[in-house]
Amino acid sequence: MKDQFYQYIQTLQDQICKGLEDIDGVAKFREDLWDRPEGGGGRTRVIENGQVFEKGGVNISAVHGKLPDSMQKLFNVGEADFFACGLSLVIHPKNPMVPTVHANWRYFEMYDTSTELSTGLRKVINSWFGGGQDLTPYYLFEEDAIHFHQTCKTACDQHNAAFYPKYKKQCDAYFWNAHRNEARGVGGLFFDYLKATEAQSMEDWYNFVTEVGNSFLEAYLPIVAKRKDLPYSAEQRTWQEIRRGRYVEFNLVHDKGTLFGLKTNGRIESILMSLPPQVQWHYDHHPVAGSEEEKLIQVLEKPVDWI
Amino acid sequence: MKDQFYQYIQTLQDQICKGLEDIDGVAKFREDLWDRPEGGGGRTRVIENGQVFEKGGVNISAVHGKLPDSMQKLFNVGEADFFACGLSLVIHPKNPMVPTVHANWRYFEMYDTSTELSTGLRKVINSWFGGGQDLTPYYLFEEDAIHFHQTCKTACDQHNAAFYPKYKKQCDAYFWNAHRNEARGVGGLFFDYLKATEAQSMEDWYNFVTEVGNSFLEAYLPIVAKRKDLPYSAEQRTWQEIRRGRYVEFNLVHDKGTLFGLKTNGRIESILMSLPPQVQWHYDHHPVAGSEEEKLIQVLEKPVDWI
Repeated sequence: MKDQFYQYIQTLQDQICKGLEDIDGVAKFREDLWDRPEGGGGRTRVIENGQVFEKGGVNISAVHGKLPDSMQKLFNVGEADFFACGLSLVIHPKNPMVPTVHANWRYFEMYDTSTELSTGLRKVINSWFGGGQDLTPYYLFEEDAIHFHQTCKTACDQHNAAFYPKYKKQCDAYFWNAHRNEARGVGGLFFDYLKATEAQSMEDWYNFVTEVGNSFLEAYLPIVAKRKDLPYSAEQRTWQEIRRGRYVEFNLVHDKGTLFGLKTNGRIESILMSLPPQVQWHYDHHPVAGSEEEKLIQVLEKPVDWI
Repeated sequence: MKDQFYQYIQTLQDQICKGLEDIDGVAKFREDLWDRPEGGGGRTRVIENGQVFEKGGVNISAVHGKLPDSMQKLFNVGEADFFACGLSLVIHPKNPMVPTVHANWRYFEMYDTSTELSTGLRKVINSWFGGGQDLTPYYLFEEDAIHFHQTCKTACDQHNAAFYPKYKKQCDAYFWNAHRNEARGVGGLFFDYLKATEAQSMEDWYNFVTEVGNSFLEAYLPIVAKRKDLPYSAEQRTWQEIRRGRYVEFNLVHDKGTLFGLKTNGRIESILMSLPPQVQWHYDHHPVAGSEEEKLIQVLEKPVDWI
């Protein structure tokens, strides 16, 4: 499973980078390979100053070794070895009419250190998938939110009709900027600890997670294509930069993946590639009553059933 | 003590705002009064888009009530009533040659809820002062760092020759951006849990903390005066905005005061007034070898004894 999924995310990284470069038309991803001293490493790909994309990263990593203390606590286990791999992306477009997007798909394995096998392989004592994808608009085009959610739902429905409502709801709960009492964006899917059950084998989960991964470009690119050439004003750009501030706040204050990376000696530049290129904080900023900006905020105050 | 200190920070807020307005020459602080539903409130003063100061806040608050659960855990106590008041300021100048400054002075009291006195007053079971002031330059003028530290030291030395080295060291330790392995700035003073001992009464600590508070304008304004009219390039401004990103990272990831406020239902806009107005994140940015920008980073990698 682990080799199969690692192979998958490598191919998916290529596909996603290609799809984004094609629609940008100018900028290319630069690639940085890095090693983790304790085992494993990653392939970070970053795009900057494009025609469409101001900054974005599409990263994969595969790390392994002794489970750090902080993760032992998190998972409520003792000493163990682990392997984790995943793809993580955040794309910040230049035009405020184009939403920011985030996605992540990951696989985790834990091994019992007391059961060294003669082959050198250790017994897997636990394994699971996690991930999702979500959209953060600066101006709300309802049809874009519907398209994104419909693509998520179509992918989910291939596997189980209960998945979309469940993971959509988990997404709304996770990307909640609690200190602002508003959602980060209009949501999508979020799932974690997808483990083998009688109903779903790990192979089934693999098929589900890769189905979602394969739906990403279809979920996002049509929105980019439709909005990337819309005109915008300096005021609309300022609004985008103020809202990007909320994105920074979420990622640095609440996002478990970011904090986990920062506190466990991850590669800082790969983790913080998620931060937007230009950001503003104004004191006590409120949009004009009845404006498009206010409409966005109202929608973010309470999760919407887009479908 | 509590009334005396609350009186002091009100006066100090007036003095500091006046000093900053005078040197700015154009912008005035706007004032927002706010109430805390559970008891108390604050007086937030914010300056924006000045000639010298791009954004800054000088806030006081005095809050009281039942000690929140999170603080019970922090202080390792059971149910108690509390009172806390303090002044907190962060100033972000426009010109990258002028450093950002932060200061805070606070007083905390806890009451035993089982000892209601006939007067309606409760027995104080614990009380302490905390605070400090620190400087964050974007371009390093060594004489500015020395002036700031010398002013801190002079204030400390009026009380105890051991205070400056001790609180200077604590400042370097506290404002350490661990995930970047660098200091936020060139430091200053940081002290906390200043409680009555045989050698120092609360009255002694009050005299010390107010001495430091009174030294703030003297520590900062001469630096502003000397640097505010220096010319700077667009590239130097970009560098300032990138470094402001590190300020955001510290405040949202590491700063106990900020996180405490965000997680205990403080007034968000008063807490986050500390965030800079315009900020940039570039992927894997490194200054040119031998440049002034690189010199700053090298100094931030290891705390300097400025005096």
